[in-house]
Amino acid sequence: MKKLINDPKNVVEEMIDGYIKAHSDFIKQLPTHNRALVTNRETRDGKVGILIGGGSGHEPAFMGYVGDGMADGVAVGNIFASPSPAPILEVTKAIDKGAGVVYIYGNYAGDIMNFGMAAEMADLEENIKVETVIVSDDVASAPKEEEDKRRGIAGEFFVFKVAGAAADFGYNLDEVVRIAKKANKNTRSMGVGLTPCSLPQTGKPSFEIGENEMEIGLGHHGEPGIEKGVLEPADRVADRLVQDILSDIEISSGDKVAVLVNGLGSTPKMELYIIFRRVEEILNEHGISIYRSYVGDYITSLEMGGCSVTLMKLDAELAKALDHPVNCPMFVQR
Amino acid sequence: MKKLINDPKNVVEEMIDGYIKAHSDFIKQLPTHNRALVTNRETRDGKVGILIGGGSGHEPAFMGYVGDGMADGVAVGNIFASPSPAPILEVTKAIDKGAGVVYIYGNYAGDIMNFGMAAEMADLEENIKVETVIVSDDVASAPKEEEDKRRGIAGEFFVFKVAGAAADFGYNLDEVVRIAKKANKNTRSMGVGLTPCSLPQTGKPSFEIGENEMEIGLGHHGEPGIEKGVLEPADRVADRLVQDILSDIEISSGDKVAVLVNGLGSTPKMELYIIFRRVEEILNEHGISIYRSYVGDYITSLEMGGCSVTLMKLDAELAKALDHPVNCPMFVQR
Repeated sequence: MKKLINDPKNVVEEMIDGYIKAHSDFIKQLPTHNRALVTNRETRDGKVGILIGGGSGHEPAFMGYVGDGMADGVAVGNIFASPSPAPILEVTKAIDKGAGVVYIYGNYAGDIMNFGMAAEMADLEENIKVETVIVSDDVASAPKEEEDKRRGIAGEFFVFKVAGAAADFGYNLDEVVRIAKKANKNTRSMGVGLTPCSLPQTGKPSFEIGENEMEIGLGHHGEPGIEKGVLEPADRVADRLVQDILSDIEISSGDKVAVLVNGLGSTPKMELYIIFRRVEEILNEHGISIYRSYVGDYITSLEMGGCSVTLMKLDAELAKALDHPVNCPMFVQR
Repeated sequence: MKKLINDPKNVVEEMIDGYIKAHSDFIKQLPTHNRALVTNRETRDGKVGILIGGGSGHEPAFMGYVGDGMADGVAVGNIFASPSPAPILEVTKAIDKGAGVVYIYGNYAGDIMNFGMAAEMADLEENIKVETVIVSDDVASAPKEEEDKRRGIAGEFFVFKVAGAAADFGYNLDEVVRIAKKANKNTRSMGVGLTPCSLPQTGKPSFEIGENEMEIGLGHHGEPGIEKGVLEPADRVADRLVQDILSDIEISSGDKVAVLVNGLGSTPKMELYIIFRRVEEILNEHGISIYRSYVGDYITSLEMGGCSVTLMKLDAELAKALDHPVNCPMFVQR
């Protein structure tokens, strides 16, 4: 597949370089590690630090969410690969304002290992208190009895958003962790893949799929889904995704949700809004009201085709956190 | 090509429906015409109205730019086709606050005809003063001697941004037209196409291109470019695009510009930042400083692959207009 790149070995470094050049008022690279980026905005002493991260190729996630109202720093991995502990630790040291740091990332073995090692080093060597929230919103990736095995996908955006707001509100470390875990607990996603992406270094497609096929529950890195079949009309796809979410979460008429229809990379906004249209109809039929809507590319997989639907069930505290303004290079909310 | 749609005949209506449902706090459909959308925010009497529009399939353009600080209304065409005069006229009537309305759109024959007819009707039948600014930023689409034949591409975003700010500042009709024309005069774009998109109703690719080819100067609707050749490394592509712009515009060391690296639809953000990285280097070598950077999907062509680079040369007035905050569903600036 065609790519606008130079040497495939350098794509992440060159992306970071371009990103810092474009947004130096928001973000800077630490001199101690080129994969450790932290906010360039003023942060008050005593604020809990929010550290996010994961593999590259998911932009705007993760570096695009460092700024006012969301994360304070990000550790950047290779494409679809976890960052190593070193940049995570450097970011931790840089963003700790005496109140500790919360790590928020998706439920992947590599991330758990590397963030886990960094947390231990931060505690033992740096005396920084670190807590961890692992996002596991992908309904398709494990049955309800094994919820803790589920992967993190687009729902990570909601958890970052809520945690960032809580830290801004002045919540302490335990309270930020509590609300971030509540956000994760109340969030469910279901995705559908239509076309693969390819990694710059191999050029190979991330998964195999037929000309007229879709794959329900496909993971962000091409992990197998739960069902492959003929591509159905958008309304039927939305029906399936939302139904699987509603069957999985305790929700009833009168409840409020936030909705995210997330594009995986190459899906036109037109199609995302056609999906949103049906999502709204279904929720309406169930008496569930939409408090806030997000439609666009929030967590992508390079140029993968397809989308996911995420619902976060809201209480007053989560709604207030969602309303909090954000100013990041790749996401702004007023 | 695979699409998440229902009946291809209904894609525009269903997109609008989803869009209005997602963003009813920002935008509403006029009861008089389903392709006529206007801001749902309070607009003060005496403000000049900003009306934009064009074909669908370019989202966020054009409906995504209706809101605070940019456009007051949009007329929505079929995919890659101009809106008819009827919705343009309805939007004009709805957004006129007694100070007249400025139409801003790209330099395409269909748009010129339809917006022209609507302007005439607004004047003769409704007694509303309408002025027009036609955007023509695409350097590749005609030689310098025939600048007025050039197409409008991603530079339209800058002209919308500047005009919207000026109207907010309280500029009168003539002054909004003056600054919008200055924005257009100071703006140049060059694009490169890598992969085609396909129209939902035909399923046919918008242009033909080889497996390892790129096309410099390709238009937003697949209009032929100026050179087809082997896909080069990103830095060489950026060199070519920026060089063609710099040769076309009077600019020298010490000048300030705004930069937009615009994705055409399926190009990962990673690649756009790799392009931006080189654009910044070249401008730096020329002693040209970047005042503001925009990197992302601002004016797309469904799932087309490729990007464009846009420079707008700034004076103090244009810089101030760029700085003005915006709150639209698909573009927010604080």
